[in-house]
Amino acid sequence: MYIGADYYPEHWPRNRWETDARLMKKAGFNVVRLAEFSWVMLEPEEGRFEFDWLDDAINVLGRQGISVILGTPTAVMPAWLARKYPNALAVQNTGQRIVWGLRKNNCFTNGAYRLLSERITRAMAGHYHNNPRVIGWQTDNEINGPHCYCDTCRAEWQDWLRARYGSLQTLNQAWGTHFWGHFYQTWGEIQTPTHEHHNPSACLDWRRFNSWLNIRFQHEQVVVLRSLCPRHFITHNFMAFGTTQTNPHDLAMDLDVAAWDNYPVWADPEIKYGAACGADLVRSLKKKNFWIMEQTAGGGGWDVLNRNPRPGEIRNIALQQVAHGADAMVWFRWRTCTAGREQYWHGILGHDGKPGRRYRECTATARDLHKLAPLLANTTLKPKVAIVYDQDSRWAFETQRSYKNNEVPAAIRRYYDAFFRAGINVDIIRPSDPLTGYKIIVAPELFVLPDATASKLCDFVRAGGVLLTDLRTGVMTETCLAHTHTLPGLLTDMLGITIEEYEGLNGDKQTYPLAGTDAFPGTFTSTLYADWIKPGQAEVLARYDAWHLKSHAALTRHRHGKGTGYYLGTIAAEPAFYDALIKAVLDSAKLKPVLAPPPGIEITLREGASRKLLFIINHLEQAVTMKVPAGNVELLSGRRTGPSLTLDRYGAAVIRLK
Amino acid sequence: MYIGADYYPEHWPRNRWETDARLMKKAGFNVVRLAEFSWVMLEPEEGRFEFDWLDDAINVLGRQGISVILGTPTAVMPAWLARKYPNALAVQNTGQRIVWGLRKNNCFTNGAYRLLSERITRAMAGHYHNNPRVIGWQTDNEINGPHCYCDTCRAEWQDWLRARYGSLQTLNQAWGTHFWGHFYQTWGEIQTPTHEHHNPSACLDWRRFNSWLNIRFQHEQVVVLRSLCPRHFITHNFMAFGTTQTNPHDLAMDLDVAAWDNYPVWADPEIKYGAACGADLVRSLKKKNFWIMEQTAGGGGWDVLNRNPRPGEIRNIALQQVAHGADAMVWFRWRTCTAGREQYWHGILGHDGKPGRRYRECTATARDLHKLAPLLANTTLKPKVAIVYDQDSRWAFETQRSYKNNEVPAAIRRYYDAFFRAGINVDIIRPSDPLTGYKIIVAPELFVLPDATASKLCDFVRAGGVLLTDLRTGVMTETCLAHTHTLPGLLTDMLGITIEEYEGLNGDKQTYPLAGTDAFPGTFTSTLYADWIKPGQAEVLARYDAWHLKSHAALTRHRHGKGTGYYLGTIAAEPAFYDALIKAVLDSAKLKPVLAPPPGIEITLREGASRKLLFIINHLEQAVTMKVPAGNVELLSGRRTGPSLTLDRYGAAVIRLK
Amino acid sequence: MYIGADYYPEHWPRNRWETDARLMKKAGFNVVRLAEFSWVMLEPEEGRFEFDWLDDAINVLGRQGISVILGTPTAVMPAWLARKYPNALAVQNTGQRIVWGLRKNNCFTNGAYRLLSERITRAMAGHYHNNPRVIGWQTDNEINGPHCYCDTCRAEWQDWLRARYGSLQTLNQAWGTHFWGHFYQTWGEIQTPTHEHHNPSACLDWRRFNSWLNIRFQHEQVVVLRSLCPRHFITHNFMAFGTTQTNPHDLAMDLDVAAWDNYPVWADPEIKYGAACGADLVRSLKKKNFWIMEQTAGGGGWDVLNRNPRPGEIRNIALQQVAHGADAMVWFRWRTCTAGREQYWHGILGHDGKPGRRYRECTATARDLHKLAPLLANTTLKPKVAIVYDQDSRWAFETQRSYKNNEVPAAIRRYYDAFFRAGINVDIIRPSDPLTGYKIIVAPELFVLPDATASKLCDFVRAGGVLLTDLRTGVMTETCLAHTHTLPGLLTDMLGITIEEYEGLNGDKQTYPLAGTDAFPGTFTSTLYADWIKPGQAEVLARYDAWHLKSHAALTRHRHGKGTGYYLGTIAAEPAFYDALIKAVLDSAKLKPVLAPPPGIEITLREGASRKLLFIINHLEQAVTMKVPAGNVELLSGRRTGPSLTLDRYGAAVIRLK
Repeated sequence: MYIGADYYPEHWPRNRWETDARLMKKAGFNVVRLAEFSWVMLEPEEGRFEFDWLDDAINVLGRQGISVILGTPTAVMPAWLARKYPNALAVQNTGQRIVWGLRKNNCFTNGAYRLLSERITRAMAGHYHNNPRVIGWQTDNEINGPHCYCDTCRAEWQDWLRARYGSLQTLNQAWGTHFWGHFYQTWGEIQTPTHEHHNPSACLDWRRFNSWLNIRFQHEQVVVLRSLCPRHFITHNFMAFGTTQTNPHDLAMDLDVAAWDNYPVWADPEIKYGAACGADLVRSLKKKNFWIMEQTAGGGGWDVLNRNPRPGEIRNIALQQVAHGADAMVWFRWRTCTAGREQYWHGILGHDGKPGRRYRECTATARDLHKLAPLLANTTLKPKVAIVYDQDSRWAFETQRSYKNNEVPAAIRRYYDAFFRAGINVDIIRPSDPLTGYKIIVAPELFVLPDATASKLCDFVRAGGVLLTDLRTGVMTETCLAHTHTLPGLLTDMLGITIEEYEGLNGDKQTYPLAGTDAFPGTFTSTLYADWIKPGQAEVLARYDAWHLKSHAALTRHRHGKGTGYYLGTIAAEPAFYDALIKAVLDSAKLKPVLAPPPGIEITLREGASRKLLFIINHLEQAVTMKVPAGNVELLSGRRTGPSLTLDRYGAAVIRLK
Repeated sequence: MYIGADYYPEHWPRNRWETDARLMKKAGFNVVRLAEFSWVMLEPEEGRFEFDWLDDAINVLGRQGISVILGTPTAVMPAWLARKYPNALAVQNTGQRIVWGLRKNNCFTNGAYRLLSERITRAMAGHYHNNPRVIGWQTDNEINGPHCYCDTCRAEWQDWLRARYGSLQTLNQAWGTHFWGHFYQTWGEIQTPTHEHHNPSACLDWRRFNSWLNIRFQHEQVVVLRSLCPRHFITHNFMAFGTTQTNPHDLAMDLDVAAWDNYPVWADPEIKYGAACGADLVRSLKKKNFWIMEQTAGGGGWDVLNRNPRPGEIRNIALQQVAHGADAMVWFRWRTCTAGREQYWHGILGHDGKPGRRYRECTATARDLHKLAPLLANTTLKPKVAIVYDQDSRWAFETQRSYKNNEVPAAIRRYYDAFFRAGINVDIIRPSDPLTGYKIIVAPELFVLPDATASKLCDFVRAGGVLLTDLRTGVMTETCLAHTHTLPGLLTDMLGITIEEYEGLNGDKQTYPLAGTDAFPGTFTSTLYADWIKPGQAEVLARYDAWHLKSHAALTRHRHGKGTGYYLGTIAAEPAFYDALIKAVLDSAKLKPVLAPPPGIEITLREGASRKLLFIINHLEQAVTMKVPAGNVELLSGRRTGPSLTLDRYGAAVIRLK
Repeated sequence: MYIGADYYPEHWPRNRWETDARLMKKAGFNVVRLAEFSWVMLEPEEGRFEFDWLDDAINVLGRQGISVILGTPTAVMPAWLARKYPNALAVQNTGQRIVWGLRKNNCFTNGAYRLLSERITRAMAGHYHNNPRVIGWQTDNEINGPHCYCDTCRAEWQDWLRARYGSLQTLNQAWGTHFWGHFYQTWGEIQTPTHEHHNPSACLDWRRFNSWLNIRFQHEQVVVLRSLCPRHFITHNFMAFGTTQTNPHDLAMDLDVAAWDNYPVWADPEIKYGAACGADLVRSLKKKNFWIMEQTAGGGGWDVLNRNPRPGEIRNIALQQVAHGADAMVWFRWRTCTAGREQYWHGILGHDGKPGRRYRECTATARDLHKLAPLLANTTLKPKVAIVYDQDSRWAFETQRSYKNNEVPAAIRRYYDAFFRAGINVDIIRPSDPLTGYKIIVAPELFVLPDATASKLCDFVRAGGVLLTDLRTGVMTETCLAHTHTLPGLLTDMLGITIEEYEGLNGDKQTYPLAGTDAFPGTFTSTLYADWIKPGQAEVLARYDAWHLKSHAALTRHRHGKGTGYYLGTIAAEPAFYDALIKAVLDSAKLKPVLAPPPGIEITLREGASRKLLFIINHLEQAVTMKVPAGNVELLSGRRTGPSLTLDRYGAAVIRLK
């Protein structure tokens, strides 16, 4: 198993490198990522390349048995590039060109920038394709280029639209430019949507276009790397749900394996749902296990310091990712940088370079991972539940939230967290993914719903699946025009309901009591949004307890074909509501967890041809004793399990199930 | 009575138009507003006009007996106009020219824009002046053009100032440019006030200038319409207090009748004081009844959805406006648009175009209105109370709030709401309006107070009127210099007080207890601001209960001539304070409501030569039983009244008083 | 003693001047400040000077025995200057040039502006060097020029860096441009840091450069004044901690005496710690007594009015400053201006120009001050405690706060206020000041710590001093690179601790309980930040009560040489914590107050060769009776003290100690 750190030899004196390499080896490390911010060191002036220092560093590391992933260094343009090609810097929606001095600041339609990026990639690939220590490449870094509003971006945007729509008539129709008399008569009239209140169809396409620009940029590097380094794998370090500039599924298509950067340590310690959910998304990008390319090794922060990981938490965070399918673990960063904007972003070592608590915890974690590695091989998660994540819907909501602070990732988490608490693993899929193999599909706020996707969801239920969908689903066509059918549109028969009216609940204290039924007991609180559901054939599971909504439903269930469709028209304030709902959904699908976890405990199952590894992770700051399947081997301790097991604070167990 | 909807035939397929027209007729509709955002459809390229589609739509509607108001379509410039005349787009105070893609985005000094606006108006007027279905015109839409900071606006601003002040010496004096050494020596030195901290006199004049630009723009259309369409009336859809770009009284001068757009459904249901107050302002613009040109027909919102009107609320909102003098009712909009920025702004029909609950409620409301119409004819409100609204004061506060979040409309509402609760109707007048006929004048925060207005108010009291004025009144001259007399200046004798000192109470919890007297019992809380009133001859009604203000007053009353002057030097936190104050003021004027309403019930009286119609409107979500004058006819039910009446939730009664 | 007001004769009719001068004389005034915003009146067009009006005003005042301080009028450029030299206006970091119309809006590298500023200074100095009424000069006004991002500023910034670092290699090293591959290869590549996330070393140097520009600007005036007016003193009106654009110690170097503008009246009345702390800073600028050049005479505010000083508070504020070393008192302003942006900034007289309460209070205060004056002569404060204020650390935190809302002045106040409550006077010194004579040094958040300063602090302790320092001290080198030694670096031996780990506590409710020990009893709350202190040889005084920090300390004490070093690694929520800590520190230093004050009472001691004056000031709104040294003379009343003394609300006593 690859275990290591993000390393910046160029930050430290040459005579420190051996010390670092020896300390890494001692920690059980066998891989580093190098050079992803080193363009100016590798090409100190235009066209002159210098690889000696990097060769040297790779050699020093190699002597300790450490392999190397190289980053294409295009996330930060050299100062000389900005000076010689000022148009390479992006223009903000204020009209001001970005002043050089940060990172990720380039315009993606600037020809010079694209050519120079391709050339440095080619030079590196040419130099390192035979280096035995180099095993793979990371493209750029956390790709999420700024939206640029310069003239060439506007020109390419017009070209992109011309290619997409063919004629202005089609575009006018697709964007509904009859509204406010916004018809275009020449392509040249189309502006970049600088304002959040510009036409929402244009705003959605603008996001698609910008995502496409990022992907094209990566593709130009991938073409070079594939041709020159056929033996190396290509990856990219995603931010999971942390950025919206790029459609992650599209960006992943060019890669061999996905990786991500996991930083779950912020405010008070809490159960790490978000890190789990991010991992499940990244695993779904290539439908296989993934790398952690940057793993939390200390407190972060650019301006303000975050809290420090608590004793045991570094291992907890790492094991959680492995439990969700990580097959490699690279901590960020080896040593805390003494200069620049990330002086507060702490690595395994502090500024002083001395191995301390965090080094010891990483070392212990590496030991555990190496111990597990042989059994982890060829295992992954095989969930029966999938949650649909739709980038288009997320983008569309960015300019039309529907209700206050609405964001698709938060919508997903309402259900995701309940599955987590129930001990059920899930995939995060895109709408176009096949649904075969899943027993439950959850589609939260599938705002942009093309007819084909709607039909697919109906087919899934008809064939015996359980679908749970909710508010705002099916409102928009693919070009962000409101559908003209009564909601939920093509899902109507399947869900057995109609929704003629709905509303945002925007007042700070505007809520409705939410009353369950015998089939779904309890009293809850409806917040933020309410569909006024007419339950036609559907069973009503919960209602709004308000005089004017007595005949409407808030939560319904409907048998359709061999399956069941659930619809939730509001947002409940209480996690217990979602626990009850997910329990009902699981019952409908006759699904059960391998083990029902106590609160604060996470359960995942990695399976391979011949084995099942049950990960049990304690996210609490106190020890927990729980029942486990007796008579199995707990791999970290090597001990046989009795009927119960005690997990330390932040502790973990990996039980090989018979 | 004209009842109808805002209709956008250009948004829907031609084969839907007949359906829409028939549904309108079935709902009792007889008027639509058309075309106010259709410039590009009417003039698809510069100088080429196309009226066929609009003729067609008018014919379809006409066949169902529906008349038409046409909007001059100048609130949205066509894309071709922005492309060919880029300077027609306004420049923001950041220096950035607005990017085309919204509405109301033009520079009002741009000659091309003005000429093209006049030409499309002329073309429409020429085409439709004889169309028997067309009855009137709406100028532009919700006129509130952006402040533009371009070079031509600066040049016109300098010209406007030259015309206003004649000489730089006069301007320097009027603006007090001795402060900070800001003397101007050439007109060319005068900048547009881009910063909120620029000279306050300049900031006030800048707002006057921008209002004048808007009015000039409308006037150029009115000249054309008057000359070509002598049989048509001209109106404009105001936003009541909802915008500050334009002085509404000035803008109304060119019109035959005022109209407004009423959207009172936002957060939790509440008593619709604001909608009532807005109506009273709009009625005062032309001193006569008005139109509702856009009436709430559903939930709104550009980004976030507001709540849905509750059952009965659509009728409640409409009847309230009629009770305040609306003589026509046009709902916005016929059908919810599926495209563009207002996809969430719901009309009578939803996106699906099917008549539903909201259609049924509008239909029922239209039926009621048609029933009332014959009796409503030639009736209006004849209040004995007027509240003074001064646009100059509102503008002056925009850069010198005096206390946190101060706004004139909110100041008005402190008193307005208490009159509403007391069952007393009021006019909202401008300072220059005649005061004859009123028994009570309330002048809240009349910050900018020319001597002539002060004298008029004193004359009013001397002749027997009751005046209530308050903090910050009389501080500024007409050019926003502080008066050099001791406050309240020319009102001193009339009010019987002097105010040498005053203060803002800015701390979040900074307040004074406010202690009443025998003549005004109770204990309240003084917030935000305190005049340290020296009660000379005036009677003290309330004091600050603070060690250092024992000899000062907070609320005073003074007999002057045949009348009485009240002065309130602070803001009370409690609505009950204002109820008590308004009760005292009413007593002073010997004024009583026709009927004292229970909480949540609104009372208005429309009077004509031979009849009095008492409107009783329930703004609560529960039924209310109240005493009413017995033995009259309730017009909506046709029943004779007993001693008490029960109003449903959101219910209304219209009693024809004997 | 000089007592007077800031006066603007140019704001008022000529025929009012005599009245003003007579009223001033009657109030006991003998000085005014004039002309600091009068450039355009003195030079109405470029190169034409007019001094007649100012001569006239000085004569009118002189006839009443009033002396004059003249301000160089360069804080507001005339409109003609902006018109003729548009580049004299600064460019904001948005790229937009400031629009003329405020003050302090110039670019400090603009040659024309510098030359014109020097010329008006020269013209005034030439005209007034012999005027017997003129006694001194104030340079400009509240110097805190905007950061300008224009091209010439960029060019000078590059020059300044070249002069500072000599070579790009040195600069690259000093700024750590290896981070993110930000190496510079030509000086021309260096941008002005427009973004708060630019390289922190560059951001710190940028602030040093801008401070230097301001100081150079003042210096160019000082050179002229020194050469032409050798008999006049030169001062400047500082804002104490109120601005960060300029290093106040550096700016003061060119001056004869420091002055400051004191405005402590904002929200609810509270103990005026800030005004005391500001005075102590300003006294330290020249290591001697200072002037108050603008003293609160009424409520202020540009947009919103602040509260009015309460009866007695004007005197309280003035006496507090004298107690801290003020030797002259100039109130701002004589009469409230009726025009411009400061219409709400109230002077001694109101807009009406009539002497009222505030005039009477200033008059009474002047009488008291004249009474005290002979005894005040040659006395000052001689504290044994110094708090270190480091402008570099303040600047460095501006782009790297470390924890939420961190600011050095607030850090200082945590300790300053506790000394205030203990009745102990302090100096506020800069790190380079000598430490001799002090028994206690407090160094809060000395973030930027060059080795020489660290050594000096260690030497101080070794020689017997008591040092208290705290979190974030010693993190950065002089160029804002993180030190590579383990914290607290060179202070380690002296403090007897090491700090390998630390964290920000950013969650809104993220705190640790803080448990004292026998030597430091009590339970408190740790907030915002926590050093995980390893107490090596140091005594632990307080710990974090959290499972993972049991072996770490929060507050330590360590004997080192003949002295003691205290280290506090967190921020306590409770003022009582700091009271206990300061008590411990005072005990360590064997320091006691002359008199232990009851709550709300401030004690200061002015000492001269032959006398000690004990100032006792009541900051409460109720009378306080307290023990005092009996048998001395209380100078304000002239009475002999008994064993106790009663101070009125806001009252004061000045006891001449035997």
